[in-house]
Amino acid sequence: MKEQKILIIGGVAGGTKTAAKLKRENSNLDVTIITRDEYISYAGCGLPYYVGGVIEDKGELVVKTPEDFKLITGVDVFIKHEAIEINREEKTVKVKVLTTGETKDFHYDKLVLATGASPFIPPIEGRELDGVFSLRKVEDALAIRELVESGKIKKGVVIGGGFIGLETAENLFEKGIEVTLIELAPHILPGFDEEIALYAQNYMREKGVNILTSERAVGIKGTAEVEGVVTDKRELEADLVIMSVGVKPNVELAKDIGVDIGVTGAIKVNENMETNISDIYAVGDCAESINLITGKPAWYPMGSTANKMGRIAGININDLKEKDSLKGVLGTTIVKLFGLNAGKTGLSEAAAIKEGYNPISVLVPGNDRAHYYPGYRMILTKLIADRDSHRVLGAQVIGEGVVDKPIDVIATAITLGAKVEDLEKLDLAYAPPFSMAMSTTILAANVIINKLKGKVETISPLELKNRKDEVVILDIRDEASHRISSIPNSVNIFSEDLYMRGKELDRDKETVILCKIGKNAYLSYLKLKEMGFKNVKVLEGGITAYPYEIV
Amino acid sequence: MKEQKILIIGGVAGGTKTAAKLKRENSNLDVTIITRDEYISYAGCGLPYYVGGVIEDKGELVVKTPEDFKLITGVDVFIKHEAIEINREEKTVKVKVLTTGETKDFHYDKLVLATGASPFIPPIEGRELDGVFSLRKVEDALAIRELVESGKIKKGVVIGGGFIGLETAENLFEKGIEVTLIELAPHILPGFDEEIALYAQNYMREKGVNILTSERAVGIKGTAEVEGVVTDKRELEADLVIMSVGVKPNVELAKDIGVDIGVTGAIKVNENMETNISDIYAVGDCAESINLITGKPAWYPMGSTANKMGRIAGININDLKEKDSLKGVLGTTIVKLFGLNAGKTGLSEAAAIKEGYNPISVLVPGNDRAHYYPGYRMILTKLIADRDSHRVLGAQVIGEGVVDKPIDVIATAITLGAKVEDLEKLDLAYAPPFSMAMSTTILAANVIINKLKGKVETISPLELKNRKDEVVILDIRDEASHRISSIPNSVNIFSEDLYMRGKELDRDKETVILCKIGKNAYLSYLKLKEMGFKNVKVLEGGITAYPYEIV
Repeated sequence: MKEQKILIIGGVAGGTKTAAKLKRENSNLDVTIITRDEYISYAGCGLPYYVGGVIEDKGELVVKTPEDFKLITGVDVFIKHEAIEINREEKTVKVKVLTTGETKDFHYDKLVLATGASPFIPPIEGRELDGVFSLRKVEDALAIRELVESGKIKKGVVIGGGFIGLETAENLFEKGIEVTLIELAPHILPGFDEEIALYAQNYMREKGVNILTSERAVGIKGTAEVEGVVTDKRELEADLVIMSVGVKPNVELAKDIGVDIGVTGAIKVNENMETNISDIYAVGDCAESINLITGKPAWYPMGSTANKMGRIAGININDLKEKDSLKGVLGTTIVKLFGLNAGKTGLSEAAAIKEGYNPISVLVPGNDRAHYYPGYRMILTKLIADRDSHRVLGAQVIGEGVVDKPIDVIATAITLGAKVEDLEKLDLAYAPPFSMAMSTTILAANVIINKLKGKVETISPLELKNRKDEVVILDIRDEASHRISSIPNSVNIFSEDLYMRGKELDRDKETVILCKIGKNAYLSYLKLKEMGFKNVKVLEGGITAYPYEIV
Repeated sequence: MKEQKILIIGGVAGGTKTAAKLKRENSNLDVTIITRDEYISYAGCGLPYYVGGVIEDKGELVVKTPEDFKLITGVDVFIKHEAIEINREEKTVKVKVLTTGETKDFHYDKLVLATGASPFIPPIEGRELDGVFSLRKVEDALAIRELVESGKIKKGVVIGGGFIGLETAENLFEKGIEVTLIELAPHILPGFDEEIALYAQNYMREKGVNILTSERAVGIKGTAEVEGVVTDKRELEADLVIMSVGVKPNVELAKDIGVDIGVTGAIKVNENMETNISDIYAVGDCAESINLITGKPAWYPMGSTANKMGRIAGININDLKEKDSLKGVLGTTIVKLFGLNAGKTGLSEAAAIKEGYNPISVLVPGNDRAHYYPGYRMILTKLIADRDSHRVLGAQVIGEGVVDKPIDVIATAITLGAKVEDLEKLDLAYAPPFSMAMSTTILAANVIINKLKGKVETISPLELKNRKDEVVILDIRDEASHRISSIPNSVNIFSEDLYMRGKELDRDKETVILCKIGKNAYLSYLKLKEMGFKNVKVLEGGITAYPYEIV
């Protein structure tokens, strides 16, 4: 049997997974990876932690050397080999050997594009100065860490408040560097709803990271080395600048030969990882996905998705009969910022509205384990559902406690088409060291069902902020708590005094009840309803979840 | 409007939840709890941790005092009031006031049985001696802790290797007491499959707890105070004995008036928490559930289920039109034993076989987060599916790493009818501090699918133990690893030498390949297959998951 030649362009998660799976499926295949990089199979998501020394050794970042990979899998790997042109008719790829400058052709029977994504570098002046980096490759991390460890860096500026930017800001800060992060949008954590993003933003600021939002970096100052960053509002001193405004899929090679590019800018593939051109597949960060909820194209460059895509391509290239498929993804993501964890799955409330849904949401604080078990921590769950079908659309969970568990539970539920009523009845693992008897996810489902049934009316922090001059804010906590901190212009009547002092309130005005986490406000809501109040609402998540001005 | 009287017998999780929900649904209801206990709303699952001082203060165990509960909810609570007889016709309950001995009648319009469960005390001699306890109520925990803290206890015997027995053994051990645990069955952790249970058993033994299995306690020795335990095999010295052989539902009151008792011995209720007698409901540990997978009656006395049942009863008693329901449960459970976590959901493999399924299972070790992120720990996943429908039937996860997350993900998947193919494609949260790029759950689904497709043949530790004299055990780890510890009579050929030394093996004999966790054995399996071996198998989970004799 003639050996089939499978050529893979790119050697990080998607490329190496495809290659390894191919050889496991059929050791007779001739599988080759070419990559312009020096390293293959590295942990892109670990780079910020290498910069900060949390991951101590370079060897830990690089999962496999080309030699080890060849030895274990039987795959040929050519590093520093850059693919510069594909010839569809000849089924060859022209490759430039970066060490010598020579070019040569690689033949393929099947071609896999695993070209990844590259940092988007805004075209601002000074971006080429020494001390200006992006953080996408192992080389970037090595260079930044070396500079940081030289002790010469006093002030760092991170441009971009996404995951990599935030993680890098944390890691630089932990190295004793004064860090300023600049975000163009009104808040960090793009894709998260405002309340959750601001919660994280307040937390990072309290830790000591200077965060500037709604601000644009317009230039970088310096002669040879970077000296500062100019924004549309000020000038900042800096001896290190990290550009982290986002990544874009590497699709040029594909585009040149007529491979369809999707609306997201990534390579269009079907659920079998096939492009529109026969014998050409695409996997990993260069390839587009489908959002499982909306059914629309979506691009989430994640190592977890790249691995799934690589496995599928490996199976399908070898066996055209029984194809494996990826129906779509949810854009599940998670980040650790100092002691805070923030995760997201499915649609945000803002995205749900944009997509034409009629969403209902709740914001529910709770503990990640029994309140009497030492070490429990608060987590804040935002659960989003479709008001008409009751289908779960998304969730965001943030806090110092465990957030990956509820996010994964809700991701699983969404994938399998769950309604909030399904979520509420889940038989989740309970013992004091692991959970409350009613987990926060179940609590959040309870509250959303109460809302759907009209048993309680609530208002979100965002809505209250926007309407705070139209409503009465009633703080039903005790006087001491109210005095320490509350929302501006709130009226304080302790819950136990409501029967007696309720007459002080104007029944005709919309009244928003405020407590610590929302639960006592709910009880006071019922009390006021019983007393005949018609227009009362509970502030979701209480003061705990209110990320705006507090006095 | 005449106030409806709702009487609830029992004041722990199910009773207090029902009561609180009732008043929130309709504050006009007259809701009363009677309980023979002194404490209500206490954390039954926290009792072992109070004994060991992990939970320091009694106040933390008791979620609400009767006074607080009344103040917050408006529910009347009568402690030390024991219900002794129900009169269906009169709709009254005769109650004995334990402090005075007098009896009085409580009228009801609706009655909720939340009578809980009681420890089963085997009828052995000496069970009434001082120093012999069960651990079910707050009073038990207070008494045991007092004794432990007196410093007089040197040797403790725990009878029963279920969760409470094991947790108590740990907590006593941590207090410096020499602890022996006696289990009648061949292993601890009833309900878990043997490999997983033995993993936990070996771990506890290494920590220093003396565990005796397949052994029956037949008597307790002593005059006034306990001095020892007699088993069918030996005598053990003891100055403290904890009886923890299981609990039984408290159903006598119900039985006396013709309330149907289910096959499990607990009160039969429909999905709305209604018994066969109108206006009588049952919730919590005294009530039976349905197993969501088999559709058959099941009894899992868990605080998490009690809370759900209470909420449903509270909703349904108030509103007969739009009833809430609990379709069933999975028997999801979890326990922490020293640094080891063990969780279970759905059917074990043994239970699946017993229920008539044709199960397929895998045992897959993996890390709970990226291997390059500090602090990662191993977890071992046993995933069980139906070979015909590919439906996920159950899982057990054990290890020092995070196990509650995969258990909850799989519990959610089972509830929503997932197949292993669904599990494999889940878009779970990935970042190095939280998960591997391919989570262990996805890995386990990958392996089970490979098995289903015939791409790999495996053998479980249990099967290998039973058949070890019939097969060749081939250890493909390096010589040093093999020398340190391996399975008795295994042959060592390093994986890299297989091509050269393969001829040393007898191709006609069934060969089981052994490595550290199963992954390299899979690669060697493929290599041997390529070399023409027909009858080879991978030992699932490698030596890591092999809980039997190691030399």
